[in-house]
Amino acid sequence: MSPDSRAEPSATERTPAQAAMLALLLEVAATPTPGNVDRAHDHSDLRFEHFLAGAVGALDGLSMAARPDVGLGRAFERAVAGMATQRGGNTQFGGLLVLVPLVRAQAHGALTRDGARAVVDRTTVADSVAFFEAFDHVDVAVDEPPPALADCDVRDADAAIQAVREREIDLGALLVADAARNAIGREYADGFERTFAIARRLRAGEGPVLDRAAAVWLDTLADQPDTLIAIQHDAETAQWASERAQAVREGKASLDAITASFQERSINPGTTADLLAGGLFVALQRGLTV
Amino acid sequence: MSPDSRAEPSATERTPAQAAMLALLLEVAATPTPGNVDRAHDHSDLRFEHFLAGAVGALDGLSMAARPDVGLGRAFERAVAGMATQRGGNTQFGGLLVLVPLVRAQAHGALTRDGARAVVDRTTVADSVAFFEAFDHVDVAVDEPPPALADCDVRDADAAIQAVREREIDLGALLVADAARNAIGREYADGFERTFAIARRLRAGEGPVLDRAAAVWLDTLADQPDTLIAIQHDAETAQWASERAQAVREGKASLDAITASFQERSINPGTTADLLAGGLFVALQRGLTV
Repeated sequence: MSPDSRAEPSATERTPAQAAMLALLLEVAATPTPGNVDRAHDHSDLRFEHFLAGAVGALDGLSMAARPDVGLGRAFERAVAGMATQRGGNTQFGGLLVLVPLVRAQAHGALTRDGARAVVDRTTVADSVAFFEAFDHVDVAVDEPPPALADCDVRDADAAIQAVREREIDLGALLVADAARNAIGREYADGFERTFAIARRLRAGEGPVLDRAAAVWLDTLADQPDTLIAIQHDAETAQWASERAQAVREGKASLDAITASFQERSINPGTTADLLAGGLFVALQRGLTV
Repeated sequence: MSPDSRAEPSATERTPAQAAMLALLLEVAATPTPGNVDRAHDHSDLRFEHFLAGAVGALDGLSMAARPDVGLGRAFERAVAGMATQRGGNTQFGGLLVLVPLVRAQAHGALTRDGARAVVDRTTVADSVAFFEAFDHVDVAVDEPPPALADCDVRDADAAIQAVREREIDLGALLVADAARNAIGREYADGFERTFAIARRLRAGEGPVLDRAAAVWLDTLADQPDTLIAIQHDAETAQWASERAQAVREGKASLDAITASFQERSINPGTTADLLAGGLFVALQRGLTV
């Protein structure tokens, strides 16, 4: 047998992890996404190339998410560790938190809302521990924990790890407890409703995929306040940002104008980007072509 | 043993294949690169997202290039097959032809000019066959073969495959025979001299990596005519394009002006981009941070 005949025949099909990486790349390339780094916009210390390297760095962790012998939290922690091998800091922490359970659902189960719920239901205390360890790799904007989880504060990860072990809190329960204030927690709570809705909108759209992605990004921000804005500023600012996005949809404001006003106020709709990354992954897996 | 303890510790280090993929992503993101698709420019049917998907698609083939049990030509052919899983057509055929031997040199040998020469020296007739098969996946701009290889014309791949088998022409010999007219052939002939020089320039530069890459791209085009321009147009046009790049370096023309004039004449310095991708890979492996 020649060496060549042992070559894999599968090189033309993306693995779930590769599709998730491509989703991260398409997300950051979509433009305009006012307030976020995108193909046409950098922040001063957080630039486009950091997101490219972050997506590549996350690949090994995303591949681990597809392996049933690796804990979901450990896959997430490794994806974050790899993402952090660039100098920009936190590029895709939230996007990976959305993507990791979806990659597992695709690889071992079904990439449906029920399939995603099943992945969340199977999370363990070890996944919670690994989740807290992921915060070691990068600075992430976080709020106070909800009152019922006051002892699970990522700002004191050692105490939080002890608390989730003592109280046997799995990763699903940990994130779902924050669903009222954190849009990613809400996805974990309700089977990724918005993520799957974004995927439907992406597939129903027309034209180049990056144009569709930018349009869906705006819809997503207009539909519900971005919870990263609420954490970094306050609920009123998040509400205001969504109203500005709605004004663009209604033709009452220009994208350039809201980009300028978001930049001026350092408004970064990061959770909207995280959900778009998840939606792009689902859409790619369901046949969206690039 | 818990599932978690089996997790790999290596997620924070890029594999050679991942670094090559990142090099492709950084190459297309660098802007301005007049005449080429880049972060700020699309062509009408060949857009930025096609290069993102092309880079991701190439990963499995690039990973095969790191495996000594896979023929180098087969790894290249699989990389091209994966690259072609997007709707833009040929995005990175030449870049992969530069990268595949460098990935092998890094993984099994040394990423030096001697190491690259050794990889080329070890190529086989089977590698030539796989190289011709790669043209099945995508339309590539090619010229007549050189007279000594008139029977090895990619435009009749079956006949070319028969010819390389009968005449026992390995991939190195095939590409080196075209070194006078094709800059990638020249790299194969002389141990990737320009690629390693590009890597040195990238590492010696300052500022964001994409800005360095765009500056080195311009230097590379100014230094020698782009052989893709020569193939798609003629030697005079390629010479003219390099003189325009030199004029920008000397402050006698603006990047915007040459971008407009290249676009108007459909001038696409693609080989310059291919060499930059190779140089970015070498620079990343030698410590260039993103």
